[in-house]
Amino acid sequence: MERRSFLKKAAFAGTVIGLSDSIIASTVQIRSSAKIALKEDAVVLFQGDSITDAGRDRKVSTPNTSPMMGMGYVMLAAGALLERYAEQRPVIINKGVSGDKVYQLNDRWNEECINLKPNVLSILVGVNDFWHTKSGGYKGTAKTYETDYRALLLRTKEALPEVKLIIGEPFAVTGVKAVDDTWFPAFDEYRKIARNLAEEFNAVFIPYQTVFDEAKKRAAASYWTHDGVHASLAGAQLMAKAWMQAFI
Amino acid sequence: MERRSFLKKAAFAGTVIGLSDSIIASTVQIRSSAKIALKEDAVVLFQGDSITDAGRDRKVSTPNTSPMMGMGYVMLAAGALLERYAEQRPVIINKGVSGDKVYQLNDRWNEECINLKPNVLSILVGVNDFWHTKSGGYKGTAKTYETDYRALLLRTKEALPEVKLIIGEPFAVTGVKAVDDTWFPAFDEYRKIARNLAEEFNAVFIPYQTVFDEAKKRAAASYWTHDGVHASLAGAQLMAKAWMQAFI
Repeated sequence: MERRSFLKKAAFAGTVIGLSDSIIASTVQIRSSAKIALKEDAVVLFQGDSITDAGRDRKVSTPNTSPMMGMGYVMLAAGALLERYAEQRPVIINKGVSGDKVYQLNDRWNEECINLKPNVLSILVGVNDFWHTKSGGYKGTAKTYETDYRALLLRTKEALPEVKLIIGEPFAVTGVKAVDDTWFPAFDEYRKIARNLAEEFNAVFIPYQTVFDEAKKRAAASYWTHDGVHASLAGAQLMAKAWMQAFI
Repeated sequence: MERRSFLKKAAFAGTVIGLSDSIIASTVQIRSSAKIALKEDAVVLFQGDSITDAGRDRKVSTPNTSPMMGMGYVMLAAGALLERYAEQRPVIINKGVSGDKVYQLNDRWNEECINLKPNVLSILVGVNDFWHTKSGGYKGTAKTYETDYRALLLRTKEALPEVKLIIGEPFAVTGVKAVDDTWFPAFDEYRKIARNLAEEFNAVFIPYQTVFDEAKKRAAASYWTHDGVHASLAGAQLMAKAWMQAFI
């Protein structure tokens, strides 16, 4: 299987979370040498599309508050981070925007990333870069995604050379509403690009597709996602648990 | 200390979560023999005041959804329960209502508790029963709280003899906005009543006051609560972690 060979890929410079055969998210593992050590007063920025946005109140600019976090994996991850690392007093900001593709992140990157001077930057983007070619008349290709994403990361590293990067794998859960078999294997290319960019930029990589694939052994796909693209509350918890493994 | 003697109280028929000396919420313990075994398709109902309500969308009646859970400890606890017990497919409902005291739960108990046939019922109520005597002109006393709460629990057990009860300790974090030293020791009486009722009704008791008192050793009170009564996102995670210990 493609996923297995990916997990076995020894030369991977980024960090892949390996999954145990038992309860998936609770046993997500990451090499301890590669985990991020959260410094005091670290600014942790979430960026991405609607999965990250999750209905957050965009009028709220106060870090660490529920309305800014939205109703998805970011709120659950933020709660976990704030509690586990209370002594470090992290400053958590969510700037995900529903519908965004990579070029749209780029359009708002100065104001909503660089200027916020994140110490940790978590990006989850890519499903719209594919999805909107099917449903929204978007003309970008996988190559567009790769080129734009690489440029965004280069720009980020130039402005913030010390930033710790977390790159989430775009995911799609087939058989639930929006996602059907016509997504594959075309969508897999986007997943592969995100993974390769994580390697290229020495980012922690969170393999959300694998997390959802494993979770389907425990409950129906519709338990974890309502439309195949957006996580349910149960699915958001899967994501938050996986995300938390990025930290020491 | 009053708290220590409470934790040592051997004859306690309900179940007290004991706290380790290290990272508090991650090490919350509960006797395994007393934990609740979540059955398949179990209905888990949250009841209480604004801490439980947490800005939930009251138009949403679909269990297990973020908008119904609100932006507080219930969403975080629901996410954790849904993920950990995916195989049991819990049905989680939040019916907390901001401002409620015990008599107000009683007023809506048929529709928003009994008729929902919960297998697990989690109640957190009491801070308004005290607070509103200071600021809202409410005339009820601690004795009123005890009498009304016992009647509510008796009524519940008569209608739902098999229901598993979780009773949360009312808590107040002194030195943060709404809560000052004039709350004590008067407010402690409400905490004691909730604890004693948990014993009387063989409920799992979640000692939230102790959870917050311990957390203040890790970060300032204002990190865990913005006004002394309502938890911050960090504080909500403390509560959710403690609450989750009620289950096997």
